[in-house]
Amino acid sequence: MKQDPADVARRSECPINLTIELLGDRWSFIVLRDIMFGGRRRYRELLENSEERIASNILADRLKKLMQAGLLTRAAVAGHKQKAVYSLTEQAISLVPLFVQLGAWGRRWLQPSAQFAVRAKLLEDGGPRLWARFEDDLRTEHLGALRRRKGPTVAEELRAAFDQLQD
Amino acid sequence: MKQDPADVARRSECPINLTIELLGDRWSFIVLRDIMFGGRRRYRELLENSEERIASNILADRLKKLMQAGLLTRAAVAGHKQKAVYSLTEQAISLVPLFVQLGAWGRRWLQPSAQFAVRAKLLEDGGPRLWARFEDDLRTEHLGALRRRKGPTVAEELRAAFDQLQD
Repeated sequence: MKQDPADVARRSECPINLTIELLGDRWSFIVLRDIMFGGRRRYRELLENSEERIASNILADRLKKLMQAGLLTRAAVAGHKQKAVYSLTEQAISLVPLFVQLGAWGRRWLQPSAQFAVRAKLLEDGGPRLWARFEDDLRTEHLGALRRRKGPTVAEELRAAFDQLQD
Repeated sequence: MKQDPADVARRSECPINLTIELLGDRWSFIVLRDIMFGGRRRYRELLENSEERIASNILADRLKKLMQAGLLTRAAVAGHKQKAVYSLTEQAISLVPLFVQLGAWGRRWLQPSAQFAVRAKLLEDGGPRLWARFEDDLRTEHLGALRRRKGPTVAEELRAAFDQLQD
């Protein structure tokens, strides 16, 4: 479900502003990053593995907001109301190039540790072809699209590079 | 002056998170956008021409924060203490590809008006070569670098396309 632009008073019609109005806060991108790169699909995984120690009420609020905005869907596991699984929508998957730039700029200017920098570097160096592969992987994982290639996924490659380094 | 990472408690070492910690709010990107794309260099221009009607205290706070973080510098005009001019640093100029993605995603998913969509489309379609040209223009304008090409700047081209359309 896409957000109806008539639902909210928009500060302006500038597309940069519209993105910031929706995602310009301290946590929305972080929650999406953990689902997208971390493969965390459940509330408890997102809460307990949070590097940035997100608070439970903030996590719940952002998940709800992202669902309302059409970036996430939520499906209950049969018989387990608490075991809902969150999925990225196409709208969220198409944030991959924006995440690449968030990581590239942070790596260049904000001195992350070597271990945390390696994934951003691999993504940046991989260029549009790698980003498209990553988006395809996410469509398989989250939208049920057929897998079109063999071998490790982009997320698995990034995690392997991360695990090889120790801070 | 670059921000010393030891100055602040960081939530994590992830470069995506570090960018969000610095710029993840409702106004930082908006202020930088107005300087970068709008060519506004003075406080009053930024305040009075703000499409999103930024409040004066928020504008002052964000300018200060962006200076402390090394993204802006401020130079007083001789004899006019109030007429200070803000300049982007190389760190801010290198946000161009991130701005392109913020605009591209907003254009694709958040239904901006046709007039406001055209600049984002031109930037997106221009690809890395246009972004590099835009960065060079900004280095000329803000860092005093020599101009390496003739003709209109990228910002002038974007403004002309915007002015041709009427919402």
